[in-house]
This record gives sequence, structure tokens and C-alpha cells, in this order.
Amino acid sequence: MEIHTYEKEFFDLLKRISHYSEAVALMHWDSRTGAPKNGSEDRAESIGQLSTDIFNIQTSDRMKELIDVLYERFDDLSEDTKKAVELAKKEYEENKKIPEAEYKEYVILCSKAETAWEEAKGKSDFSLFSPYLEQLIEFNKRFITYWGYQEHPYDALLDLFEPGVTVKVLDQLFAELKEAIIPLVKQVTASGNKPDTSFLTKAFPKEKQKELSLYFLQELGYDFDGGRLDETVHPFATTLNRGDVRVTTRYDEKDFRTAIFGTIHECGHAIYEQNIDEALSGTNLSDGASMGIHESQSLFYENFIGRNKHFWTPYYQKIQEASPEQFKDISLDDFVRAINESKPSFIRVEADELTYPLHIIIRYEIEKAIFSNEVSVEDLPSLWNQKYQDYLGITPQTDAEGILQDVHWAGGDFGYFPSYALGYMYAAQLKQKMLEDLPEFDALLERGEFHPIKQWLTEKVHIHGKRKKPLDIIKDATGEELNVRYLIDYLSNKYSNLYLS
Amino acid sequence: MEIHTYEKEFFDLLKRISHYSEAVALMHWDSRTGAPKNGSEDRAESIGQLSTDIFNIQTSDRMKELIDVLYERFDDLSEDTKKAVELAKKEYEENKKIPEAEYKEYVILCSKAETAWEEAKGKSDFSLFSPYLEQLIEFNKRFITYWGYQEHPYDALLDLFEPGVTVKVLDQLFAELKEAIIPLVKQVTASGNKPDTSFLTKAFPKEKQKELSLYFLQELGYDFDGGRLDETVHPFATTLNRGDVRVTTRYDEKDFRTAIFGTIHECGHAIYEQNIDEALSGTNLSDGASMGIHESQSLFYENFIGRNKHFWTPYYQKIQEASPEQFKDISLDDFVRAINESKPSFIRVEADELTYPLHIIIRYEIEKAIFSNEVSVEDLPSLWNQKYQDYLGITPQTDAEGILQDVHWAGGDFGYFPSYALGYMYAAQLKQKMLEDLPEFDALLERGEFHPIKQWLTEKVHIHGKRKKPLDIIKDATGEELNVRYLIDYLSNKYSNLYLS
Repeated sequence: MEIHTYEKEFFDLLKRISHYSEAVALMHWDSRTGAPKNGSEDRAESIGQLSTDIFNIQTSDRMKELIDVLYERFDDLSEDTKKAVELAKKEYEENKKIPEAEYKEYVILCSKAETAWEEAKGKSDFSLFSPYLEQLIEFNKRFITYWGYQEHPYDALLDLFEPGVTVKVLDQLFAELKEAIIPLVKQVTASGNKPDTSFLTKAFPKEKQKELSLYFLQELGYDFDGGRLDETVHPFATTLNRGDVRVTTRYDEKDFRTAIFGTIHECGHAIYEQNIDEALSGTNLSDGASMGIHESQSLFYENFIGRNKHFWTPYYQKIQEASPEQFKDISLDDFVRAINESKPSFIRVEADELTYPLHIIIRYEIEKAIFSNEVSVEDLPSLWNQKYQDYLGITPQTDAEGILQDVHWAGGDFGYFPSYALGYMYAAQLKQKMLEDLPEFDALLERGEFHPIKQWLTEKVHIHGKRKKPLDIIKDATGEELNVRYLIDYLSNKYSNLYLS
Repeated sequence: MEIHTYEKEFFDLLKRISHYSEAVALMHWDSRTGAPKNGSEDRAESIGQLSTDIFNIQTSDRMKELIDVLYERFDDLSEDTKKAVELAKKEYEENKKIPEAEYKEYVILCSKAETAWEEAKGKSDFSLFSPYLEQLIEFNKRFITYWGYQEHPYDALLDLFEPGVTVKVLDQLFAELKEAIIPLVKQVTASGNKPDTSFLTKAFPKEKQKELSLYFLQELGYDFDGGRLDETVHPFATTLNRGDVRVTTRYDEKDFRTAIFGTIHECGHAIYEQNIDEALSGTNLSDGASMGIHESQSLFYENFIGRNKHFWTPYYQKIQEASPEQFKDISLDDFVRAINESKPSFIRVEADELTYPLHIIIRYEIEKAIFSNEVSVEDLPSLWNQKYQDYLGITPQTDAEGILQDVHWAGGDFGYFPSYALGYMYAAQLKQKMLEDLPEFDALLERGEFHPIKQWLTEKVHIHGKRKKPLDIIKDATGEELNVRYLIDYLSNKYSNLYLS
């Protein structure tokens, strides 16, 4: 048979996966934006059925045969087909190397572990969760032996979320980052020049927050012909297909920041997915390059745009009009200082952009220790608390505000956290490079002209989808390897100006 | 192997179909309640993929083998399993008897015909649609020869929508109905005692209509833990799973009736599906018994409850409060007369409950003539117009308000229309029987106590799902065969009182 026949069949399988994925994504979205509670059990089964179908196609004998045939004629394939085949092979092997029975056992364990974690967190009692965590770690250690690794066992887990990023890379980046940030956090904490933030948490009508969320999405270049905004409890962006990328947000009437910055954050994720090359639609390359690159786009919009003073020059008035009592006596400068408050805190998801990377580094160091067999599960809470004291100068008083705060481990997601910090580094390096091409960046914000910024990000990042690995995207976009200095410089300048001048 | 092993596998296949059906239903619902337009092409493909998967399971060799094995041990099966196997066999044969290539050609033709119909209707030019209609009829004539029939070729089509109902049955019912209704319509038309309806079409705020729609759903016993209300263009109710039955409605600010009576109508459909026996969940029996039985429930709620004067005794005040300017000078009696206005009109979907059955009888007689080879496609418009003149006393002036008004034929749905009229007859007969068990029916409405009514319908109709055929449901519920007298008596009494007293 002609190679094209196999190629067509291969892409037909990917297309079929994309159709099932659309159904699964819609069911998840619907479950989190208003599906009635009585339908949730059947819904979970329907999601389970279609997820199994996807897994079965990815690991089917036919998929393997097609991959093998296409590898035999690899040089004859187009560049995109090569990438798609490589990725399909990686997915096949990742999934196939774990014995089926073991994987099923693991999925059930994760489900039980999440329930146990919820209870443990509610009661702030690590001992209720630790037996599950112990088993989850054992499973992952076995998975690592199945998958294999070059230098460090933890590399096998990192590769699931950030292909190409290793312990060696992270050790160096995080060492540099710590060296710069820890003293800066101490200085900021000790500074007497603190912003007034009392006005932030006053009543701000939900309807107005919704109007503003819609308004900012529109202004920033989110395409409503290819998406919509809905309300949820834990906000997310989700892609159903290339023409349907949805954003969700949460309205807290006592803190408008939840909705406004949350929406702008998800807007960054969504604009990424709305601008992936259409030629990749229906293939496994029509997706973000990695967790970290995805986060770089949401953080770019949230922090480099949304927390930038120049952004608020034209828009602060909108906030004042939406909640006049709250903001009538607050100047633009005071507003910007308040929304950029930095102070050490226990909960990662509530952390500001200066202290956030330290939360991630703590998790990274702990995960690395776990998979190097350097720490036992029972010692994790004390290790956690010690690191919070060392890096942030605060000690969690309960398991709930310490070791139990994140759901990730209960879901078996080890190796995921570093992507958040990489997102910051990617974003800072992209921003620095963008300034060379768009030196009038701040002026663009002042004029509410976001199109050139989006255009730049699309050309350098969005359009490529999963064609490139994350570190290659950064290198190709900026002309150099990933360099943590850009993040350090950005944070040092910003927080010195805010707190130390 | 044990029979139970086959039984389990059979039900596993049905369950799998139910999961795919949930995904398809959600995608349809989403497409009609706010999905962004750019995603529609991929969405259609995803729906197509999952619909094909369902079809492939229903017509799979394995399904056939399981049906055959279970038929061999039919007497050992439970009653529900027998029904499920019978239905699966019917579906298998219906689908399998049409050659695959021919069916695919037909699906493509339907899609083209719908487009042509839209254009033809827009231009009010039957000649743009007639070539497609000609082909659609030819296909259906061939399908009839594949499926076979006992007495009349049209029976094969009726059986798709209303199993057990034949030309012989309908000829007799419709003859009786015509004999009673046509003179009554003439008397009503000639009556000088007409209601004032001018106040109906004044501005009624959309938000208030929404509040009232939610309120009436709640009052009537729709369970919001197992459903939700959304806005759409062409309202419908849809079942995702047993715990998730959704209602949609449309708000016309110039005519509150669209939303209020539309919502109550869909409420009837939804309450039906919310109360099918849970034991049937995930099987092919967890569905309405037929199109007509479904319509009987929606019509029961819309007409026997919603257009009943006693219903409005406690609730008319709500309408007055929602739009005070509109209703402040209108008495309850005048309101009830206005919402029960009857007058011959061209468009079926806008017809009142007295003239509605005549619209259906016209379509029935025309379809029967088509499949008896008694009329050519080119003669359809004149046949249509002649019947409107004979039965309703009016003659359509354009194809758009005549032969082209309904989408059904363009979608290949021949044999569907009679179910609407059967729904009226079923509802009237059920209502009459209900009065024996609940003689205080009107008083219940006056007290807003709908639970006993819902309970009665659930026991007699809802709970059975597809366990029983439509005519058996009516016979078991009322103790007699379907009898059109109940509808005739209901309409005669109601409209004599309104117009001829």
C-alpha cells in the first residue's frame, strides 16, 4: 500500500480521538458550569467510557502498526506528520509500558486518594491521607522503572508535563532564583512602605464583575465567535475544538480580584488555544506545547499586562465606575500598588507573583527528595514546614495550610508543580524579547492596543501548538536558552520600586 | 456459557449506547443554547462520529448474536429483558434491512434537502424543493419494501413513530374527529362572541418571563436537581441521562405566551422523562413509549392544566404583577378567554387546540395518498390548498404558508405527523380517566396542588418507559381502547362554552 494510505488512516485515528475529546471536554465543562447534581453519576460513567475509548485507540495494535510503518518511511513524511507520529509513539509507549491491571488499580487508588485527601484536608489531619500518598508514590516509582530515565528518576515524571526539562536544568534555575528571591522577599517583608489594601475587599456587585470580565476578554483579543464565558467554582479554560475555546471565572462579591485577574489569566490560556495553527486541527499537535508554556501565556496576560500600571491607565476608570463607593477616593497609583501587594503566605494559589516561585521550589525539592528516596512520607509535614520557614519566614500551623493544601498528589500528579515556575520564567524571557520588537509595549497598554502583543505571542508561541518542545519554543522565540535572569530582573525591579524606593 | 453472561454483555452494549447518547444529547443541547459559531463544523463531525458509533453497535454482528442467543432462551428471561431484546431486534432489523450504501446516500440527500427546503421556504417556491421531495419519497418507498408491512405501505412508516398504530386505526379515528370538529370550527368561526386578544401582544419584560418560567416549572413538579432551564430559538426538552432532563424556552417580549405555554409544554415532556422507572436506566427502554405518548404528556400540561381557567385562579395574579400595565384592567375571565382563542390559520405550530388536529389530518391524508401512489409531487400544493379550504375554510396564498411550512419531509420524516394528533387523543382519554380517580381535579388546580396529578400520570404512563406500546399504555391506564370521543367531547364542551353560549 501507498504510504499515504497509512498516513490517512493514522490521521483518521487522531481525528476520531479529537471528536471523543470534544465530547469529554464538553461534559467536563458542563459538569462544572451548571449540570444538575442528579445526573453526575451517569455523567462520570459517560466520561469514563469515552476516556477509555481514547486510551484504547492510543494504545491499539493498529496504532502501533501505523506508527511502525510510518517510522519505516520517516524521511518521506512532512514535518508535521513526523511530529505527530513521534508524539503518538511517545503516548503509545507511556501508556503501554504500564501493565493494564496495574494501571487500573492505580486509577482506582487515585479516586480513593482524592476522597481521602478531601477528608484529611477538611480535618487538617495528614495521617488520614498519608497511607494513600505512600501507595501513590510506590506506584509512581514503579512507573518510573517502566518508563526509564537518563540521569534522575524524577526526570521521568517531569517529562510528562514539560518534555525536555530535567532535574539538572531545574536545579540550576531554581538555585539562581532562590538566591535572588529569598533575600528580596525578606526585604519586602521588612519594608515599612506597605500599600493600603483595605479597599480591595469591599462589596463589588457581581453583575458589574461579569460585565467587566466580558469587557476585558473582548479588549484583550479573546474571540467570542470561538468561545464564551461562564461561571464556575474553580475557574479554568477549556478547548472543545479549534473554534470553541471557553473561559470560566468566579465572582466573589467581597473581592473583585478573583474574577478580574482570574478572567485575564484564563484569557491568556484561551488566546493561546484560539491561535494554534488551524492546519493542526484534529491532530495530536493541536494543543499547547506544555503545561509550562501554557502557564507562561496566562501569566503573561495576568501579570505582565493585567498587573501593569500602564494597563490600568485607560481602564481604572471602568473599575471606579463599576463600584464607585469603593474606589472614588483611591488614586490609580494606590490601586496599582494594592493589586501588586506582596507578602509571604501559606497558600500557593493565593500567593503574589514575587513569593509564588518559592511555593513551587519547595514542592519541587520535596518531590525530588521523595523520588530520590531521601525522605519518608511521615517526615513530609515537617520537611514542608521547615522549608516554608527557611524560604518564606513563616511556619504553617496546620496540615491544611501546609502539606495538604494541593490536590495534585492525590490525583497522582507528581512532576507537575515545576511547570508553574517555568511558566513565570518563560513569560519573563518572552516579555524581554518582545520589548526589542515592540519597544512601545507600555504605550500600547496605555492605548489599549493589544493586537500587536497578541500577534507577537501568536507568531512566537501560539501558532506552533505541540510542533515544538517547550525549551525550543523559548530558544526560537528569544534567541537564547531559558535564562532565569529575566524573571529575577523583572521581580527585582518591580518589587524594589513598589517596596524599597 | 451461562445465559447471564450473554445477558450481561447485551446490557453492557446498551449501557455503552446510553453513554454515547448522553454525549450526543449534550452536544445538541449545547449547540442550541449558546455554543460559539466557529466551533459548529467540528461539533457536527463529533456528533456524526458518536452517532455512527451508536449505529454501529446497534447493527453489529455481536449485537445480532446476543439477540439470537437470548431469543433461544426467551422464556428464561425477565419481563424487562424480554422487552429490551425485542426492541433491540426491531432496531437491528430496521437499520440492517437498508443496504448501507443506500442509507448513506439517503442521509446525504436529507442534508441537501433541508438546505433546499430552507431556500424554497424563504423564496416561497415549491419548485426549488420538489425535486428533492420526489427523491425522498422514492427512497422511503424502497425502505417500505425492505421493511415490509401487513396492510398498507404507509403502516411501515407509522410504525417508526407510533408502534402498533396503522392506517386502519387512523382512518377510523380521523374520520370521527373530522366529522365532529369541522362543523364546530365553522360555528366558532361564525360566532360573533369573540374574545379580545389585543392585550396579549404587549411588552412583557424578558426577565419576568424567565422568572415565571422557572416558577411554573417548580410549581408543576419539574425537579431542578435533575434538570435546568435555558434559552433557545426552537424550544425542546432533552434527556442526557435519568438524572439530567433539560428544558429550553424562548422569550418573545411582544408575546409572553411563547415562553409561558412553551415552558409548560416542555415541562410535560421533561416530567415524563424524569419519572421513568430508574430500573430501566442505561437500557433502550429508558425513553418515552412513543412520539404520541410523549406529546400527550406535554399537551396535558400545556392545555389541560395550562389553559384551564382553574389553573389561573391562583396564578393569574403572578402574570398581572409581572407586567402590570398590560394586565391591570384585564379580568381573569377575559385573560382565560384570550389565551383560548380559536381561529383557522395557516401555520400548524401557531394553531390553537381546536383547529390543530385538522392541520394534522390534512398532512396524514396527503402522506397516505403519496405512499398509495395516488398523488404526484407536482400536485401536492393544490391538494394541500384544497384541503385547507375544505377543512378550515381558508386557502394558503403562498407555498411558504402552505405546503412548505414544515421541515419534517425535508428531514425524511414521513409518518411522524399523526403522532401529534394521537397525543391530543391520548391526553383527552387520560384526562377523562383521571377524573374518576381525582374528581377534585379542578380544585387541585385552584389550590396549585399538582402532585396527585403528576403521581397519577407517573403511575399510568411515565414509569413504564418503553416497556409498553402506546396503545397498550392507553388501554391499561383507562381500561378501554383508544377512543376519540374523549377529545371530541373535551373540545366540543370547551369551545361551545367559550364561543357558542
